[in-house]
Amino acid sequence: MSFRHTTGFEIEFGDCDPVGIVFYPNYYRWMDAAARHFFLAAGVPSWTETAASDGIIGAPLLETSARYLKPATYGERIAVDTSVAEWRGKSFVLAHAIRRADTVLVEGSETRVLVRRHPDDPARIQAVDPPAWFREKLA
Amino acid sequence: MSFRHTTGFEIEFGDCDPVGIVFYPNYYRWMDAAARHFFLAAGVPSWTETAASDGIIGAPLLETSARYLKPATYGERIAVDTSVAEWRGKSFVLAHAIRRADTVLVEGSETRVLVRRHPDDPARIQAVDPPAWFREKLA
Amino acid sequence: MSFRHTTGFEIEFGDCDPVGIVFYPNYYRWMDAAARHFFLAAGVPSWTETAASDGIIGAPLLETSARYLKPATYGERIAVDTSVAEWRGKSFVLAHAIRRADTVLVEGSETRVLVRRHPDDPARIQAVDPPAWFREKLA
Amino acid sequence: MSFRHTTGFEIEFGDCDPVGIVFYPNYYRWMDAAARHFFLAAGVPSWTETAASDGIIGAPLLETSARYLKPATYGERIAVDTSVAEWRGKSFVLAHAIRRADTVLVEGSETRVLVRRHPDDPARIQAVDPPAWFREKLA
Repeated sequence: MSFRHTTGFEIEFGDCDPVGIVFYPNYYRWMDAAARHFFLAAGVPSWTETAASDGIIGAPLLETSARYLKPATYGERIAVDTSVAEWRGKSFVLAHAIRRADTVLVEGSETRVLVRRHPDDPARIQAVDPPAWFREKLA
Repeated sequence: MSFRHTTGFEIEFGDCDPVGIVFYPNYYRWMDAAARHFFLAAGVPSWTETAASDGIIGAPLLETSARYLKPATYGERIAVDTSVAEWRGKSFVLAHAIRRADTVLVEGSETRVLVRRHPDDPARIQAVDPPAWFREKLA
Repeated sequence: MSFRHTTGFEIEFGDCDPVGIVFYPNYYRWMDAAARHFFLAAGVPSWTETAASDGIIGAPLLETSARYLKPATYGERIAVDTSVAEWRGKSFVLAHAIRRADTVLVEGSETRVLVRRHPDDPARIQAVDPPAWFREKLA
Repeated sequence: MSFRHTTGFEIEFGDCDPVGIVFYPNYYRWMDAAARHFFLAAGVPSWTETAASDGIIGAPLLETSARYLKPATYGERIAVDTSVAEWRGKSFVLAHAIRRADTVLVEGSETRVLVRRHPDDPARIQAVDPPAWFREKLA
């Protein structure tokens, strides 16, 4: 079973829209933050460190998606459960279940890829195969 | 061919992350704004007006997604081309192509549904079939 | 000595700008959230409850300000210490000290006023004197 | 009379809070963007260019403030009039008047300072006197 990490957030007044519910781009803001906490909890070093050791400078996004099941509002606490749902060659899919207690509010995904600077042109980036140590930490 | 509307935005410094490129949730912020401008341009009345005429109080989201093809940074102008990609029973899919001049940066979608207050419980909402006038304006 | 409450936040990647430090409007986002947590911790009921009991529907802002002493970046935890710095007739000033451990990063203030609906026109709002119970809770 | 530049924005649904009016940190987001457009319109080169020519790498903030005179909501267009209100030794104050047509909604200010990398430690920054060419462009 794959590594799983839960990150908690509180929904604030300013995260909500004139209808009084979360303005949906904020769910992606929380997914992005949850991904960073997931990597940290799994023991992935900072991108500064991996840049020095493996040349890997980050994990940019190829795709994101979300399904909205229930609304939520300010004053509520949410938890984001993050795990790797799939390895797809160079890319991998993070699944994020955003819930309020046991009620799942949003099912989200982020497809990311590890990148290094292109050897022929440092202004460009290039996807790399996830190293074994990376897959082991997240597996 | 379906109705299409283009909304322009300028990418600002504060829309970008420490890598210097757009922080991705902002693309969804622009898609949501583009959807509102699309409805206005198509001649859909405000939800306040439709609430009075048809009982329709808004068009909440069921799903959203985005594919990131090219990065962008501040000082660049982007255009979002919006149209209805699909009618799916009660729901409909808005396609958003976000481009810088002719270069498509992001392909996004928003699946929305029209809602009214539930006749038995005004605290709940209920999906309704898109009325003919709505489909005609967006078709 | 006046009531004081501390609210904690973690700075996320998406809160930072291309320089790699917090994009400053986010400090105001945290101050607004800290104000809500301060009211809750002091025992101020929700505005829905005060609307029913005192007619008070919220505490909108007259002025805000911030002095930036030190930068901060993602992965850092911050604490916001909030208290009433001054009562000024109908308005009152919240002081927010935003710090990383013992290092103050930002000194902020929010001048707010309690409002009710105007008795002659419910579409307008009207400032009211802070009731005794409100001053006592925050004093 | 000093150089003045006006930047336009449209208030979007997602910029507004559960009360239905602009969530106030967004006014600072617009001021920051207006400052960048003001510098561009005045003919100040990009910080990348000034880094090469004068060593100046940016104009970080010392202080910001805002007075909220009238609320605004989505669908409304706003204009931000920006000018230098004061030169204070190394720092300078930008005044931003945010208005809807002729109605001023917010009076804001940003106190900024030009910085270069510290000659003894490039990880630190150091305030510099605004060069004559900079003062002339903004005067």
